[in-house]
Amino acid sequence: MAQARRERLRQALIDAAEQVVAGPGLTALRARDLAEVVGCAVGAIYTAFPDLDSLVLEVNRRTLALFEASIPVEASGLDESPVAALVRLAGGYLAFARAYPSRWRALFEHRLGPGHALPEWYVAEQGRLFRHIERPLARLRPDLAEAERRLLARSLFSATHGLVSLGLDEKLTALPPSVLEAQVELVVGAAARGLADAP
Amino acid sequence: MAQARRERLRQALIDAAEQVVAGPGLTALRARDLAEVVGCAVGAIYTAFPDLDSLVLEVNRRTLALFEASIPVEASGLDESPVAALVRLAGGYLAFARAYPSRWRALFEHRLGPGHALPEWYVAEQGRLFRHIERPLARLRPDLAEAERRLLARSLFSATHGLVSLGLDEKLTALPPSVLEAQVELVVGAAARGLADAP
Repeated sequence: MAQARRERLRQALIDAAEQVVAGPGLTALRARDLAEVVGCAVGAIYTAFPDLDSLVLEVNRRTLALFEASIPVEASGLDESPVAALVRLAGGYLAFARAYPSRWRALFEHRLGPGHALPEWYVAEQGRLFRHIERPLARLRPDLAEAERRLLARSLFSATHGLVSLGLDEKLTALPPSVLEAQVELVVGAAARGLADAP
Repeated sequence: MAQARRERLRQALIDAAEQVVAGPGLTALRARDLAEVVGCAVGAIYTAFPDLDSLVLEVNRRTLALFEASIPVEASGLDESPVAALVRLAGGYLAFARAYPSRWRALFEHRLGPGHALPEWYVAEQGRLFRHIERPLARLRPDLAEAERRLLARSLFSATHGLVSLGLDEKLTALPPSVLEAQVELVVGAAARGLADAP
């Protein structure tokens, strides 16, 4: 019974935190505001979560799921090349970052305190997303061992993330939407083709 | 005379701010602390600079110059291929970010207030750095118009920045130094080779 009440409080707090992260953004998240929205004492938050970081990770878990659900599927009936698949995934990442800027930024802005590592379940959720990149890479470079492929998938993601985050950064180098899309396609496509023809 | 005094104050403030940015980092920068180090009133800072943002841009100008001076030169006596040149520049960027993490982060953490654009001189300094990438690109893809080449140079930089910033990010995906170097070389090299063989 106490267990059920605690679980309801957890879900209410995740919902409330999600509203903040998706709206004004992670930096606006305050325990006091959450307690007010949910109708609990500030101290009660810490009966449901060890700390606010753990709550943010639950919000980010939802963001990762939202991203996975938003990945564009390959054109049906066509045999999609691995290069085309990698370009499609990069385009999907750009579209997601543009559609959900605050949620997306929270994935990278959120910092655990010193000495705290990401929990295993969160690392596993990230890993599931990387497998979307690993699959076409396995067709592109069947010679790579699994560990190398996993590393390369992360690196391709990092490069794409750089293109997207600096390309959307209005203070530095923001590009018009169609120009940024074309650049992501150009650079990720080139990297994929270059990887296929290892020197 | 007043002009000379103001210039001395400006330089002293840039020196003091540089120490903070290079040490504890941009987020530790406080007008009060700078005034104490320099031995002036807090208000005097604003006779030398319109705001702290302008002071930070001067520190970042020094960081850009430090980076440019640190770019590894091509092996003399050899005809370096454009692909090798682009890989060398990316490796130089990684080495710089690793050697000067706080200074490097300040280049991206610093945000001007709403409605403030980067001054022309700062944009020009950035542009000079991008020309290091544009030169090998011009040899790699002589068919590209200058505007396309400039855009692509920035995109290659953004992709490299993503590899470097996520690869050095201890909370997300930090990689051992030699592994990260190899991944930057692999992905940037592949992108350069793929760009050479436009589909």
